[in-house]
Amino acid sequence: MKDVISVGLLGLGTVGSGVVHLIDNHQDKLKHQVGCNVKITKILVSQLEKKRDVQTNGSRLTINPDDILEDSEIDVVIEVMGGIESAREHVLKALRNHKHVVTANKDLMALHGKELLQAAAENGCDLFYEASVAAGIPILRSLTEGLSSDRITKMMGIVNGTTNYILTKMSQEGRGYDEVLKEAQELGFAEADPTSDVEGLDAARKIAILGTLGFSMHIDLDDVSVSGISSVTAEDLEYCRQLGYTMKLVGIASRTEDKAEVSVEPVLLPDAHPLASVHNEFNAIYVYGEAVGETMFYGPGAGKLPTATAVVSDLVEVLKNMRLDVNGNSAVIPQFVKKLKTEDEVFAKYFLRIHAKDKPGTFAALTTLFSELEISLEKILQLPLKNSGLAEIIIVTHKAAKSDYKNVLRQLDLLEEVVDVKSSYRVEGDER
Amino acid sequence: MKDVISVGLLGLGTVGSGVVHLIDNHQDKLKHQVGCNVKITKILVSQLEKKRDVQTNGSRLTINPDDILEDSEIDVVIEVMGGIESAREHVLKALRNHKHVVTANKDLMALHGKELLQAAAENGCDLFYEASVAAGIPILRSLTEGLSSDRITKMMGIVNGTTNYILTKMSQEGRGYDEVLKEAQELGFAEADPTSDVEGLDAARKIAILGTLGFSMHIDLDDVSVSGISSVTAEDLEYCRQLGYTMKLVGIASRTEDKAEVSVEPVLLPDAHPLASVHNEFNAIYVYGEAVGETMFYGPGAGKLPTATAVVSDLVEVLKNMRLDVNGNSAVIPQFVKKLKTEDEVFAKYFLRIHAKDKPGTFAALTTLFSELEISLEKILQLPLKNSGLAEIIIVTHKAAKSDYKNVLRQLDLLEEVVDVKSSYRVEGDER
Repeated sequence: MKDVISVGLLGLGTVGSGVVHLIDNHQDKLKHQVGCNVKITKILVSQLEKKRDVQTNGSRLTINPDDILEDSEIDVVIEVMGGIESAREHVLKALRNHKHVVTANKDLMALHGKELLQAAAENGCDLFYEASVAAGIPILRSLTEGLSSDRITKMMGIVNGTTNYILTKMSQEGRGYDEVLKEAQELGFAEADPTSDVEGLDAARKIAILGTLGFSMHIDLDDVSVSGISSVTAEDLEYCRQLGYTMKLVGIASRTEDKAEVSVEPVLLPDAHPLASVHNEFNAIYVYGEAVGETMFYGPGAGKLPTATAVVSDLVEVLKNMRLDVNGNSAVIPQFVKKLKTEDEVFAKYFLRIHAKDKPGTFAALTTLFSELEISLEKILQLPLKNSGLAEIIIVTHKAAKSDYKNVLRQLDLLEEVVDVKSSYRVEGDER
Repeated sequence: MKDVISVGLLGLGTVGSGVVHLIDNHQDKLKHQVGCNVKITKILVSQLEKKRDVQTNGSRLTINPDDILEDSEIDVVIEVMGGIESAREHVLKALRNHKHVVTANKDLMALHGKELLQAAAENGCDLFYEASVAAGIPILRSLTEGLSSDRITKMMGIVNGTTNYILTKMSQEGRGYDEVLKEAQELGFAEADPTSDVEGLDAARKIAILGTLGFSMHIDLDDVSVSGISSVTAEDLEYCRQLGYTMKLVGIASRTEDKAEVSVEPVLLPDAHPLASVHNEFNAIYVYGEAVGETMFYGPGAGKLPTATAVVSDLVEVLKNMRLDVNGNSAVIPQFVKKLKTEDEVFAKYFLRIHAKDKPGTFAALTTLFSELEISLEKILQLPLKNSGLAEIIIVTHKAAKSDYKNVLRQLDLLEEVVDVKSSYRVEGDER
């Protein structure tokens, strides 16, 4: 093995700067761990002339990706440029040129992971992506190594910091969605265009990656049923609180026998559930294994240094593999052919909030409907809505098939007594 | 690599039975992961003729350890017999006979880890022990791999399920230590002789292992300052609650620059700290890294199948290494020479509960003492103790050197106004 390993860095934004910082500051530790020096020799940037905070310590900046991808001195490429198409091309080219790749790019891995991991295997290269899900939490390693001997049946992840921040503030301070979103944008916890976060798309990419690894079954992004938090109201959260629930945007991947179900949606969790006390921008992944039972992994889901830590830990793994000459053995081809549950195989409890006419017979009409459709009810709360002639009715069902529950929602809309179905959320974690 | 790997099992108690169960039930998964079949061929037991729940599926039972340790067909030895001296001898012999070893034995690793890891390295063997700390939580791997590029500065672990169960019940139900201990013993959460758990010795072994790995510095069991929970009272917990703290028995390993401090003691944590909501028999390890910030790993700390999961995951790692022919490379020799903080270099906040004479001047005498010894106070609460002429005084200090604080405790005993120092606990996590 060489005395100095040359690394090419694609991207010098927030995470890229963090990677430069960590590698520079941890030379002694890296050398102790892997037995050689590590140097970032070239960095791909979009503009050469730009004021930067980061010391690039002699690395050459370039705007031409081939300066890195075609450089035979470079053994490892770190992709932290983001985006999808260019990143995909660069990573493929790097792998074909027998360079190992570390990426922090969840979009890339959720959409093209299968192709890229295959290219890595074909070229005897490592492709690691720990930073792509819940940056500061070593969850991918825990799934593939620490819990490798168990059969994981459920994962629930708070994997988007923006939405967790928004829901935390709304819950704790009784404030509305728009107001809190605006504040989050001002504080840098939400993007100017928050769509990808608040509509659950970002979380969907992460749960697709988790599902694929945890269930050893290739989960596509299209397999994830997605809904976001933009229609959650302060009233919803207040009723959750009264019933002892905390709302979180949760990526759920669960399986029964050989069939899986993957979704992202706002979920009510009992206050005592470990995920319920994960606040603000923090992430956590709850993993249930048949043998191990309940585990949870908690930490920062984003940020310059947490993400860079995951990237550099992957780099250390690549370097250790280089020392032992065993790169390209880590990617495990999924053991199972994907089978997804249909909606009549997905069972959950639901929280439902309805405005109905406040008159005799309303309650009976509702309960009759649920009973006809064979969904039994666990909790019912009815309150008069002042000066409106309406009643607020909150229902928590027992477990029901998703198809049956959707049927109830359709029928409710037709009931003369029901004025409006205000909101409806899945309830999880009650069976603990 | 052979088609079938033969494993010898030392011990067929609870964990051993779990290991047999997992290996039998996960043959397909194991074969998919490591490309060969795995079979437990021999099992060391103390009595051949004994009724057992577990199917040993054709494995030969033996009472002679050499039937396993000297069997050239056996490649891997799993030590789940417990105890220290025999386990040490068997593991050493296995390693010298070039067998890889997986152990769940924290006592063994805390006391003899250095010697055993060295023997493993000398013989080109793997020695893995993930199950020895917080069984169901893959924390050792997370420290050595997932967070490998970071500089960990603090670990706080709830690593003993018995004491966490007792403190949880005492806190939630306002009950006394003796009563809850008795109940825990009846429910199987505490041993008939609970000393090792309640006096913190079990936790001390685990934090020594965590400190060694997290700080890359050999921490001996003797380096751990230990106190347990047997003198904690319901009153202490009630005052904690009033001040917004939750008490946990915490193994603390922290370092500043190149010096470390390791202890096990009852610690007050703010209710919002992630460790504060780890209840009952669950374990969790909070890790603070300079780059990653706060992370926490939560799960079951003991139990047949959680422990067996960790053991079999280690076995999978051994088998993968065998396939790649790279065993014996995992143990990293500590990077640093151990330096421990002296008591004047250990800084913490403290909670102190005193019974003092309820008369003018008492309060002034106390505050003068603290101010003379240059310890400033963050919170003070004084309440009359009915019909006693005494006052209950609760003090929470700002950060102080441990040596200064111990000096205060000595001086308090001499103060004419102070009748009794009822209790004193370290406070952590307030600076979050």
